Amino acid sequence: MKLIGKYLDGFISQQQIDKIKPKVIRAHAALLNGTGAGADYLGWVNLPKNYDKTEFARIKQLARKIQTDSDILIVIGVGGSYLGARAVIEALKTNLYNDLPKNTPNVYFAGNSLSSVDLSNLLKLCEGKDVSLNVVSKSGTTLEPAVAFRVLKQMMEQKYGVSQAAKRIYVTTDSKKGALKAISDKNGYETLVVPNNIGGRYSVLTAVGLLPIAVADVNISQLMAGAAKARTDMKLPDNPASRYAVYRNLLYNQGYITEILVNFEPSLAQFGQWFGQLFAESEGKDGKGLLPNDAIFTTDLHSIGQYLQDGKCKLFETVVRVKNSPVEILVPAVDDNLDGLNFLDNQPVAFLNDSARRGALRAHNEGGVPNIVLELPALDEFNLGYLIYFFEFACAISGYLLGVNPFDQPGVEAYKHNMYQLIHTPGHK
Amino acid sequence: MKLIGKYLDGFISQQQIDKIKPKVIRAHAALLNGTGAGADYLGWVNLPKNYDKTEFARIKQLARKIQTDSDILIVIGVGGSYLGARAVIEALKTNLYNDLPKNTPNVYFAGNSLSSVDLSNLLKLCEGKDVSLNVVSKSGTTLEPAVAFRVLKQMMEQKYGVSQAAKRIYVTTDSKKGALKAISDKNGYETLVVPNNIGGRYSVLTAVGLLPIAVADVNISQLMAGAAKARTDMKLPDNPASRYAVYRNLLYNQGYITEILVNFEPSLAQFGQWFGQLFAESEGKDGKGLLPNDAIFTTDLHSIGQYLQDGKCKLFETVVRVKNSPVEILVPAVDDNLDGLNFLDNQPVAFLNDSARRGALRAHNEGGVPNIVLELPALDEFNLGYLIYFFEFACAISGYLLGVNPFDQPGVEAYKHNMYQLIHTPGHK
Repeated sequence: MKLIGKYLDGFISQQQIDKIKPKVIRAHAALLNGTGAGADYLGWVNLPKNYDKTEFARIKQLARKIQTDSDILIVIGVGGSYLGARAVIEALKTNLYNDLPKNTPNVYFAGNSLSSVDLSNLLKLCEGKDVSLNVVSKSGTTLEPAVAFRVLKQMMEQKYGVSQAAKRIYVTTDSKKGALKAISDKNGYETLVVPNNIGGRYSVLTAVGLLPIAVADVNISQLMAGAAKARTDMKLPDNPASRYAVYRNLLYNQGYITEILVNFEPSLAQFGQWFGQLFAESEGKDGKGLLPNDAIFTTDLHSIGQYLQDGKCKLFETVVRVKNSPVEILVPAVDDNLDGLNFLDNQPVAFLNDSARRGALRAHNEGGVPNIVLELPALDEFNLGYLIYFFEFACAISGYLLGVNPFDQPGVEAYKHNMYQLIHTPGHK
Repeated sequence: MKLIGKYLDGFISQQQIDKIKPKVIRAHAALLNGTGAGADYLGWVNLPKNYDKTEFARIKQLARKIQTDSDILIVIGVGGSYLGARAVIEALKTNLYNDLPKNTPNVYFAGNSLSSVDLSNLLKLCEGKDVSLNVVSKSGTTLEPAVAFRVLKQMMEQKYGVSQAAKRIYVTTDSKKGALKAISDKNGYETLVVPNNIGGRYSVLTAVGLLPIAVADVNISQLMAGAAKARTDMKLPDNPASRYAVYRNLLYNQGYITEILVNFEPSLAQFGQWFGQLFAESEGKDGKGLLPNDAIFTTDLHSIGQYLQDGKCKLFETVVRVKNSPVEILVPAVDDNLDGLNFLDNQPVAFLNDSARRGALRAHNEGGVPNIVLELPALDEFNLGYLIYFFEFACAISGYLLGVNPFDQPGVEAYKHNMYQLIHTPGHK
C-alpha cells in the first residue's frame, strides 16, 4: 500500500507536519508501549502475529463443516460484531455474493436492527434450506442480537429438533463469563472467543470476523498475512498510518469537519461502513472528531458530487485506489457510433474508471477539496488485511493526537438507558 | 403524514419562524407560479395530476409483459435514472426483494458505476436466465449507462439474436432527440419518455422510475395517488413541506452543517440515497447548503451513534417514523432467562424498535441534536408517494430560501470535463 499526499499541496504545509512530529512520535510510542488511554484494549496491535493458532485452525475446520452442511449462514451481531465480516466478504466476493452461483453458503446478517420486516425476511429465506447460525456478542445481552437469537433459535429448533439444532449454532463470545457463554454451555454450542482486550470495532481479525469470512471462502491466512505485514511496517516511527493520522489531524484543525472515504467499486460500500464505525466511535467524543462518511464513485458523483464540488461543508476525501481490476471487460465496438462513444471501442472499462478517478480528484482539488490517496496493488486477501490493520493503527494514533481515548464509546450508552427505561427493564431506570 | 417540530424546542424559536414567513410565502408562490429560478424544470409540480394517462397504462402493460417473459430486469441508469426506482422497490418490497421467493422478476441496477466487477457479475447472473433491459438516459451519451448498455446489449443479442433481443429492450429517454432515441428508432425498441421539464432527481414518478417499480409488483396507481394527495396539501400556503424547509433553513443559518435522514428499517437505506441526491444536487452549490447524510437506526447507533451523541460536527436529524409495522413478530418466551430478557417475552419487536426511536431521539436531543420527525401511518404505496412528493416540494422551497437554483447541477460537469480529457474524447479538451 502506498500513501500519496501530493493532493494536499496548498492545504497543509511541511512546516505544519514538522511541528506536529514530536506529538506523533509520542502517540506512536504510547500505542506500542501500552502507556496511552484505553491501554486495556490493545490486543489488536500484536494480533496478526500472536493470534491463537489452535483456534484459527478450528475456525477453518468449522467453516468447512458449515460449507458442507448449510445453504445459509446467518450471522447474528450488531456494530463491530458484523460490520467487519460483511465488509470483507463483499470486498473480496462482491456485493452480489449471495446472488451469484457458487459452492459456498449464502451469508446473511441479522440482529443488527430491531426491524420485524428484516427478521421476517430471514425466516422466509430459511424455508426449505439448511441453515447454520453464528451468534456474535461479547455479553449476550445486547438487545438487537439477543432478540434475533431468540427468534432464530426457535426457528432452528423447530426445523431440526433441539439437539440437532445445537450442532448448527456457533457462538462467538467471552471465553469465561456472560449470558451467551452460559447459554452455550447449557446447550452444548461450539464456542469461539471474543478476546477481552479487543473492542468490537477492532475485532474483524479475531473469530468475530474470521468464521463468517472463512465460510464465504475467503483465504483467512492471507488476510492475516497482510495484517502481519502492516504490523511490521507500522512499528517504524515513520509509517504510513502515522502520516495519514497527521494529515487528517492537520486538516481537522483547519476546520475540515467531514472525511469522506471514497471507493471506486460498489463492492467496497460495506468497507465504508466498517471504516465509519471505526472512526466515529473512536474519535467522536468530548465534542471532537471528524464526521466519517463514505461514497462510491463514479456512482455518487451523480448524487452528492455536486455538493462535494460546490457545497458549504469543509470536507476532505480519503481515496482508496485499487491499481489492478480483477476482471477485464472491454467496451464492445459498434458500427453506427450513434452514442458517439466509438473512441472507446475495445478500451478496458477499468481504464475509464481510473480516468474518472483522476478527473474527479483534480476537479475536487481545484474546487477546494484536499485528497489523501491510498494505493493498493490489488483488492485481494493480503492487501485488504493490510488496509484493515493500517486503518486500525491510524485510528488509534488519530485518537491520541486528538486527545481522546480511542477505545471507549461512552455516548452509545445514553440512548440505551432511555430505551430500556421506555420498555421497563428491571435494572434500568 | 405528520410533521412534528417539538424536538426543535430550544433550538429554534417562534420568533425566528415568524420572521422568515414572508420569504417562505414568496418562495411558495414562485414555485407554484413558475416565476423562480429554474422554472423550466417544474414539470414535477403538477405531475401527480397531469401525468400522461396513456403512457401510464402502457407502463403497466409493459411491466406485465416483462413479468411474464423475464426472470431478471436490468435497469441501466445513473443518478436520478435509477435511485428513485431502487429506493421505492426496496422500501416496499424490502432490501431482500431479489433473494426472496416470488413470482416477479429480480431487478438489478447497472450503468451506475464504471466497475468491471459489477458488469462481470451481471453477465454471470444472466446465464441461463431470461432477461429484459430498461435503459434510462435522457441523452444516451452519459458514460456509465452508455458503456453498460453496449456490454449488456451485446450479451442480449448473443443470447436471443438481434431481432428477439430488440423485443426485450425498453428505452426511457427524450421523446424526440438524442443518441438513445436514435438507437431506439433504428432498432425498433419500445420507448418511454423522460419529460423535458423534469430533471433526473425529480423523475421517480415518471416512466424513469415507474417501469421498474411496476415490474417489481408495486401498485403504481397508489403511488401516484399518494403524490396527488401531497400535491393538494402542499398547494396551501401553510403546508408541511414549507414548514420543514423553514426548520432546516433556520438550523442551517445557525451553523448546523449536516442533515441526517434517519430511518428505522434497513429497507429504507436506498430511500436515504435518493434523498441524498435530491438535496445535495439541489442545494450544494455557490458554497452553500446542508450536506445530506443518512442512517438506519438502531443499526447505526452502534457505529456513528457515538459521534452523533458527542462529536464535533453540528448536525440535525430528520427522522422518518412509520407507525405501523407491516409484520408482527413477538419475542419468543424462554424458560431459563439466561439472557435476562424475559421481561420482553411476547412483546412485539416493533414496540422495541419504537422504544429505541424514542430513546435515541431523547438522548440526541439532550446531547444537542435537534430533531424533525415525519410520521407516516404505514409504509405502503400511498404513503411513500406522499413522502416522495413532500421531499421534492420541500427541496424546491429550501433551495429558494437558500438563494440557489434548485434545478441545476453545474458542479457535476467539472470532473466529467477532466475525465473526458484524460480519455481523449473528441469534443472535450
